[in-house]
Amino acid sequence: MKDLIPGKVFLVGAGPGDPDLLTLRALKLVQSADVVVFDRLVSEEIMALVPAGVRRIDVGKMPGCHRVSQDAINRILVDLALEGLTVVRLKGGDPLIFGRGSEEAEVLRAAGIAVSYVPGITAAQGASSSTGVPLTHRGLATGVRYVTGHRARDARLDLDWASLASLDTTLVVYMGAANIAEIAFQLMRHGLPASLPVLAVASATTPAEQRIASTLGSIAADIATTEPEAPVLFVIGRVVSLYDSVALADALACEGAGMAAYA
Amino acid sequence: MKDLIPGKVFLVGAGPGDPDLLTLRALKLVQSADVVVFDRLVSEEIMALVPAGVRRIDVGKMPGCHRVSQDAINRILVDLALEGLTVVRLKGGDPLIFGRGSEEAEVLRAAGIAVSYVPGITAAQGASSSTGVPLTHRGLATGVRYVTGHRARDARLDLDWASLASLDTTLVVYMGAANIAEIAFQLMRHGLPASLPVLAVASATTPAEQRIASTLGSIAADIATTEPEAPVLFVIGRVVSLYDSVALADALACEGAGMAAYA
Ligand SMILES: C[S@@+](CC[C@H](N)C(=O)[O-])C[C@H]1O[C@@H](n2cnc3c(N)ncnc32)[C@H](O)[C@@H]1O
Ligand SMILES: C[S@@+](CC[C@H](N)C(=O)[O-])C[C@H]1O[C@@H](n2cnc3c(N)ncnc32)[C@H](O)[C@@H]1O
Repeated sequence: MKDLIPGKVFLVGAGPGDPDLLTLRALKLVQSADVVVFDRLVSEEIMALVPAGVRRIDVGKMPGCHRVSQDAINRILVDLALEGLTVVRLKGGDPLIFGRGSEEAEVLRAAGIAVSYVPGITAAQGASSSTGVPLTHRGLATGVRYVTGHRARDARLDLDWASLASLDTTLVVYMGAANIAEIAFQLMRHGLPASLPVLAVASATTPAEQRIASTLGSIAADIATTEPEAPVLFVIGRVVSLYDSVALADALACEGAGMAAYA
Repeated sequence: MKDLIPGKVFLVGAGPGDPDLLTLRALKLVQSADVVVFDRLVSEEIMALVPAGVRRIDVGKMPGCHRVSQDAINRILVDLALEGLTVVRLKGGDPLIFGRGSEEAEVLRAAGIAVSYVPGITAAQGASSSTGVPLTHRGLATGVRYVTGHRARDARLDLDWASLASLDTTLVVYMGAANIAEIAFQLMRHGLPASLPVLAVASATTPAEQRIASTLGSIAADIATTEPEAPVLFVIGRVVSLYDSVALADALACEGAGMAAYA
């Protein structure tokens, strides 16, 4: 009667890309799962940590062309769990930050399947640590805010611009590359200075990481001409003013260490 | 001449408490460090992962009575690095979210010492995963915002209430237990309904985790009478409405699995 006992689904964050940023729990789970159902944002290096005997199902969606619909993903997860399997649903970043983790969980719970979440380093934290730009910093940002710059097809970007245009809060825009011109324009219209620093970070924490240091006034042009590859996020706010000094200090520290080594 | 080469300081997030929520990188670093300088928020279970041969320095601060001043911590870090040691500065959560990581880094960089950050699961993510309340969710929250409810002695809480009082954004208040009455009052004055659900989570992801499900209108009374032990954070917003159904579904799923096991 074993097949009457539904399996369990773990909705697990895989972090921003660097496999070393997986949590210990995430590693243990992918190593002991029956099957790993993974997203486009989960890097090959991370999937290399999944043992050979574990089944893998790729439900990654390419931007624009949805390879597997959300409904189909939900059905796959329910079916696997009802087979009695231990399923790890591996997602980029954190499953509960722009990750649809709780939407998948609702479907699973409705089918009587137990669900557990495992948090992951979200993209904003990966970009912050790797570039050295803090998300909060005394005197520069008393808080941080994550928003999505994505809009449904043909819909307008529905953000509360007046509230977003605050100098005291670091603003991190996920899924904003396609609409960065409108986002920057609206933030300036609502009072943020064109000189406010912006850092775009693509593929943060991976070997392909790319950074574009700009300002609210110039970021649209810089993105249009540089066309960084997805995924990209934007860190907007006074904390980004620390970026140059961080990069410079790191270079000097390396030089110092290098010279000392020859002393 | 080895002592001319300064050591390096890694500012490392230890996550919210559960040692399994450490990243692989954090584990590798504490295992290979010469010395680990750690905070009050870093749990004993996490410190148990530090090998016996590694020196430990506890700079934890008890609320109210600062055991080691920030200046003293900075000096300790600089001195250790100038001795040529590899220093892991281990902090609760993420070092760049209300963690003063970038302030310590500034002092270190000014002394010519190289600094690297390693992100950690921040408390909001720990609380979210463990309670099942998502930080964003289609139709309930288009974004999430972290603020601090701490105020300097005798100062007023200096938050932009009008912008915080938004139904579309999940608000997570760190360091807010002492001022939750004022925070809730101001949010209601600025338009949020007294019925808006609030979840207080203490010691999230640890065996001592405690949850208080309330509303904006009742949270102050509930905290005053329950007096949860620090650390505590508050999740405020429509996503918290999912809390009861999650708890119920989990209980049913367990029961279902239990009954199936007897079938
Ligand atoms: C559907 S959201 C998923 C977010 C994920 N759940 C998280 O917590 O990071 C996808 C967006 O995340 C951001 N993103 C994810 N990984 C990233 C990375 N390594 N570098 C930069 N941005 C990233 C980009 O803005 C991308 O458009
Ligand atoms: C100085 S802040 C440090 C935050 C940390 N850097 C992070 O990213 O989580 C301390 C506050 O974090 C929150 N906090 C930290 N760990 C927590 C936990 N396990 N459960 C609930 N709140 C926690 C509380 O609001 C506490 O007052």
